[in-house]
Amino acid sequence: MTLIVALDPPQSVDDALEWSSKLVEEVGTAAAGFKIGLPLLLRAGLPGLKTLADKMPPESLKIADLKLADVGHIMSTTAEAVAAAGYDAVIAHGFVGVEGALDELADTCRSMGLKLIVLVSMSHPAASRIMDPMLDALLEEAVKADAWGVVAPATRPEIVAKARKRLGPSYTILSPGVGAQGAEPGTALCAGADYEIVGRLITRSASPRETAFLLLEKQREAVSRC
Amino acid sequence: MTLIVALDPPQSVDDALEWSSKLVEEVGTAAAGFKIGLPLLLRAGLPGLKTLADKMPPESLKIADLKLADVGHIMSTTAEAVAAAGYDAVIAHGFVGVEGALDELADTCRSMGLKLIVLVSMSHPAASRIMDPMLDALLEEAVKADAWGVVAPATRPEIVAKARKRLGPSYTILSPGVGAQGAEPGTALCAGADYEIVGRLITRSASPRETAFLLLEKQREAVSRC
Repeated sequence: MTLIVALDPPQSVDDALEWSSKLVEEVGTAAAGFKIGLPLLLRAGLPGLKTLADKMPPESLKIADLKLADVGHIMSTTAEAVAAAGYDAVIAHGFVGVEGALDELADTCRSMGLKLIVLVSMSHPAASRIMDPMLDALLEEAVKADAWGVVAPATRPEIVAKARKRLGPSYTILSPGVGAQGAEPGTALCAGADYEIVGRLITRSASPRETAFLLLEKQREAVSRC
Repeated sequence: MTLIVALDPPQSVDDALEWSSKLVEEVGTAAAGFKIGLPLLLRAGLPGLKTLADKMPPESLKIADLKLADVGHIMSTTAEAVAAAGYDAVIAHGFVGVEGALDELADTCRSMGLKLIVLVSMSHPAASRIMDPMLDALLEEAVKADAWGVVAPATRPEIVAKARKRLGPSYTILSPGVGAQGAEPGTALCAGADYEIVGRLITRSASPRETAFLLLEKQREAVSRC
């Protein structure tokens, strides 16, 4: 299982919770997990996020991607709230660093049974200019924070490969950027990622479940040729 | 008016919206503005944030400090939502950079009449190790994004001074860290800040309004001696 679905509701949708609930129910176990973000939190509220988590298959990875980037106690408070709502992983930015930030969040994650995922790179143009020169340092922060995994973009597979080389096999690598952002299915898997995160290509498809299976098939084909 | 109150509800409070509404009503015009963050959003929801904004004095600066650090369209969606809820400024991280991130957010801010505030430094220990060496670069991103202002910590006034030197007089500098985090009132103002952001010292005071006036008095004393 190598596919995670990002649930970012389009502005045109009236009821973001209904929209995301339908997607979760349709995609179901075709995805290894689901990822929600700030746009859905703003529109569905924390109670809505809980309702949604309850609809996700029990074995699926439920990721709260609020791109946490604050001091330790603020990130910890947030992590506790999303854990209570049924999510089992949080994403925080590596550049806030360990002391007074990721260390406190990591403690909270351990005590709440949450997986800590550290973002070490992003897919937009400015990230390659500002964050890529810091990649080694950001990976060190992820290691020091004893993260479960890291996020690195499928649009720049060389970054995924560098992350895998530095981290070894025991860390999970999650890669957004497949589909609407331009990366082909399987690109990040071939570079060393465990999961590819796909949003619009699935969520705006007329048949999200079929599209998910098609993507899994394309991933398998790509991986067989890596 | 040189004081902004940060409204981060303690875990011990049952009703975070009631707690923050009371504080806003009590402090009132003693503060130049109020700043809310992710902990309050999680507990009060966007409708709660709107209720709260409606209680803030009309002339006060209403800052949504969600530490935005995502690609452009996600930050823009968030900015639109908080603008619709009555806030007039958003804080985003400078390290996500301009192209594909702060540029899109800046466009949205302009079209919504929102002030864009770029965070260029933070108060926790890891920030001095990771972010401070990048200060000049982060200030450049703030300038390129045509930000209204930047955030720099009162706990490290030399950073505030460097920001003011680079930015000149036309940018607004906001400094958290006064009070519970250790900086004395007036420290950041003397270093070049326009506002000091105070949280717990006021919000956990038995007399928040009196404490706010006492802080303003201490700021004036400090500034008279800079």
